[in-house]
Amino acid sequence: MKKPAPTLSHLDAEGRPGMVDVGSKSPTARTARAEAIVDFTPALARALRRTGRSAKGNVLDTARVAGVLAAKKTAELIPLCHSLPLDHVDVQGHWKGSSLVLTSTASCRGATGVEMEALTAVGLAALTVYDMCKAVDKGLVIRAIRLLEKTGGKSGTFRAEK
Amino acid sequence: MKKPAPTLSHLDAEGRPGMVDVGSKSPTARTARAEAIVDFTPALARALRRTGRSAKGNVLDTARVAGVLAAKKTAELIPLCHSLPLDHVDVQGHWKGSSLVLTSTASCRGATGVEMEALTAVGLAALTVYDMCKAVDKGLVIRAIRLLEKTGGKSGTFRAEK
Amino acid sequence: MKKPAPTLSHLDAEGRPGMVDVGSKSPTARTARAEAIVDFTPALARALRRTGRSAKGNVLDTARVAGVLAAKKTAELIPLCHSLPLDHVDVQGHWKGSSLVLTSTASCRGATGVEMEALTAVGLAALTVYDMCKAVDKGLVIRAIRLLEKTGGKSGTFRAEK
Amino acid sequence: MKKPAPTLSHLDAEGRPGMVDVGSKSPTARTARAEAIVDFTPALARALRRTGRSAKGNVLDTARVAGVLAAKKTAELIPLCHSLPLDHVDVQGHWKGSSLVLTSTASCRGATGVEMEALTAVGLAALTVYDMCKAVDKGLVIRAIRLLEKTGGKSGTFRAEK
Amino acid sequence: MKKPAPTLSHLDAEGRPGMVDVGSKSPTARTARAEAIVDFTPALARALRRTGRSAKGNVLDTARVAGVLAAKKTAELIPLCHSLPLDHVDVQGHWKGSSLVLTSTASCRGATGVEMEALTAVGLAALTVYDMCKAVDKGLVIRAIRLLEKTGGKSGTFRAEK
Amino acid sequence: MKKPAPTLSHLDAEGRPGMVDVGSKSPTARTARAEAIVDFTPALARALRRTGRSAKGNVLDTARVAGVLAAKKTAELIPLCHSLPLDHVDVQGHWKGSSLVLTSTASCRGATGVEMEALTAVGLAALTVYDMCKAVDKGLVIRAIRLLEKTGGKSGTFRAEK
Repeated sequence: MKKPAPTLSHLDAEGRPGMVDVGSKSPTARTARAEAIVDFTPALARALRRTGRSAKGNVLDTARVAGVLAAKKTAELIPLCHSLPLDHVDVQGHWKGSSLVLTSTASCRGATGVEMEALTAVGLAALTVYDMCKAVDKGLVIRAIRLLEKTGGKSGTFRAEK
Repeated sequence: MKKPAPTLSHLDAEGRPGMVDVGSKSPTARTARAEAIVDFTPALARALRRTGRSAKGNVLDTARVAGVLAAKKTAELIPLCHSLPLDHVDVQGHWKGSSLVLTSTASCRGATGVEMEALTAVGLAALTVYDMCKAVDKGLVIRAIRLLEKTGGKSGTFRAEK
Repeated sequence: MKKPAPTLSHLDAEGRPGMVDVGSKSPTARTARAEAIVDFTPALARALRRTGRSAKGNVLDTARVAGVLAAKKTAELIPLCHSLPLDHVDVQGHWKGSSLVLTSTASCRGATGVEMEALTAVGLAALTVYDMCKAVDKGLVIRAIRLLEKTGGKSGTFRAEK
Repeated sequence: MKKPAPTLSHLDAEGRPGMVDVGSKSPTARTARAEAIVDFTPALARALRRTGRSAKGNVLDTARVAGVLAAKKTAELIPLCHSLPLDHVDVQGHWKGSSLVLTSTASCRGATGVEMEALTAVGLAALTVYDMCKAVDKGLVIRAIRLLEKTGGKSGTFRAEK
Repeated sequence: MKKPAPTLSHLDAEGRPGMVDVGSKSPTARTARAEAIVDFTPALARALRRTGRSAKGNVLDTARVAGVLAAKKTAELIPLCHSLPLDHVDVQGHWKGSSLVLTSTASCRGATGVEMEALTAVGLAALTVYDMCKAVDKGLVIRAIRLLEKTGGKSGTFRAEK
Repeated sequence: MKKPAPTLSHLDAEGRPGMVDVGSKSPTARTARAEAIVDFTPALARALRRTGRSAKGNVLDTARVAGVLAAKKTAELIPLCHSLPLDHVDVQGHWKGSSLVLTSTASCRGATGVEMEALTAVGLAALTVYDMCKAVDKGLVIRAIRLLEKTGGKSGTFRAEK
């Protein structure tokens, strides 16, 4: 027996895109965490790591600032997103072999979730890393931008599979 | 014998991030193509494809518009990017099994390349697809945002490996 | 006997423009509906309608996305407007002879009304329609951008005359 | 015999919206003029005019600044517009009975026209006038936003009919 | 005996910049006042003052509108600032000899203070004054951008020394 | 004998603000340098300097990124400024006693000067420094935002007095 097709909440009866009306939802505490992974060649990863804290810190810090600023612009970038009063957003990075793993956390007290803010933060942080390294290697790949976790709201907690 | 470490053009002598000065470069024709792949579960991919042109077209069209608008904001989002007068930017999508493949092309006549515009276009298009489908599946993964090709400028043509 | 002149709340004692202070107002539910009408030549209206759902849908869908995005930027565009946390904004369109009637609805729970958000949504949606059709007819006229209705707030309900 | 349907340059072969590629066009001098008319009740028009230069000047000046700023954001607001390096943009206003007539001029040396900049300028100026007067009269109507003239480019000069 | 070094709340344990998490703070009424002083040459100050209300009013009014708009963009301009729902923001100006003193007030009901909004308002108003006068005198100096007062929040009231 | 009053190029015949029309100017190489000075208490200056490169570098680096991003938004912030295609913009900082001296350079090939870009860069960098240090000392004062030098264009070279 076939499962019923999932429905796509952003499409109205005639298939036209539209914002979800959150007017009947009360603000509640919400969080989200997301991740983006940038794969470097081993040589470039070594170079970035070897130059030590200041240089590496600077690529990462610029990317982190870009991510925080982008999160605050999510509603301007994602057409059907609501503006949310973020309580906090942060981007961190750590190395895993030749890959730079960027993770974000976002939180708000709002009527809808902060998943897109967390995802936009890591997405733009990753693009900024690409921009700062592309003179050396245009072959860098951003992979696995994904939601790690969200809490709060009617749909409750989500955790990505390992 | 060890190869010399690649240098990172965006870092100055003290390791501080900074914009590249393009004042001595003449404007030349430049293009870039980039790609982002969004992996769906087979059930959601079927649902999106089954609802046919209007529904699928609408998710994709909204994402395409988001991508074009984002490309025009690249310099506002990527801290060390230059503003470029884009001649054209476009985002297209096609299905490959349960994956939606978004590709962008960007072109300008400018003193620096349009790689970041092309990458930003597909990155935001992919995040918009996620936003429009997340009510059904928060486990969607954006993978492989990468530059496919660039032409023009001193560094010439780049093509990604298959 | 002459009626006293109406006063213009945005002008202070010296006639200088300024924002209204809403600090003493409590957030309440507010809605607004607005309308913009784009007049086409009969031939262009027929062409747009004849190409059927996908083509017409696309001009309209692009305009609707532009309207939703513009509504979220109202406070950035209208100098003395407050930023409002929109619960919902939507733009719809229907044909009335050779005219495309765009209507918007906006709602929020805020200390001031959402009239400008609704008006900005249809205004920019109409400008987007113009942009997408101007290669065929630069003589298109946008007429009758107006508020249809607002509810909520101290001044209560307003309904435009027919 | 039926005339062939006009074609809509922004729709590609499959009816999807897209930017026009201007990469093969050389920059040339271009101008555009547009108009928006705001209809007041006679009482409000009298009040605005009677308060004399400073008050009237202030409503108009705020609207003019809003229009100039909006023109510079056209490419951010109209999805398929190109960014253009404006040489000049200006908004003026004069009274015609109870109607405030706002006119804009825009010019650039670019590969595509400045019609949308001129129209966006008067459109946002008119919305700003509405915002500043709506406490007195929510029934104000913006009518007849239209292009008055454009010059330059392949399609040459356009002048609106009287 | 040496006083302990002040700690800088925006730096995390590793010295990386980050936003302050305000998720545990309740919204309370907050205000801030700031000041910027623009020093003119006596001749230019006289010219600006002599041309009377309309001309002087216009430089100042344009600067005031620029300041209000900038205050609403504070979170977009200052990387680690939170978006705040401003209840009110205003910029005023008065002459003190050859100096134009710009003062701003900002207020909100939020989980963090509005100091940066008040400072950004006067900062951009002062830069706008510079822009409008620089054809006459590029030697204008903006001096003493500073917070005059803030109220509300855990740290209570601050008043600048005379 | 009285010198004639300087004229203010941004005011038209009726004293209304307006953009300068640069349509008859050819693009030429232009540069500008500006400066902002942030005065700290000696204790806070010592703390910032003592924490060494990473902490100081981070406050400064965040401010530098904020300054570069702000320069690219100058035309959006200063109402009567033209959009300019910046070839380069940079913000640097050094200590002079208890004062942090921020200097910017901006350059473009355009029809009008980059003074406002250089000034906006240091202005926002200074406000960002304030934001990052205000938890420790709200009494920080930004003083002496001024143009140091500009080259290019009809008015030629300007150098600030010492």
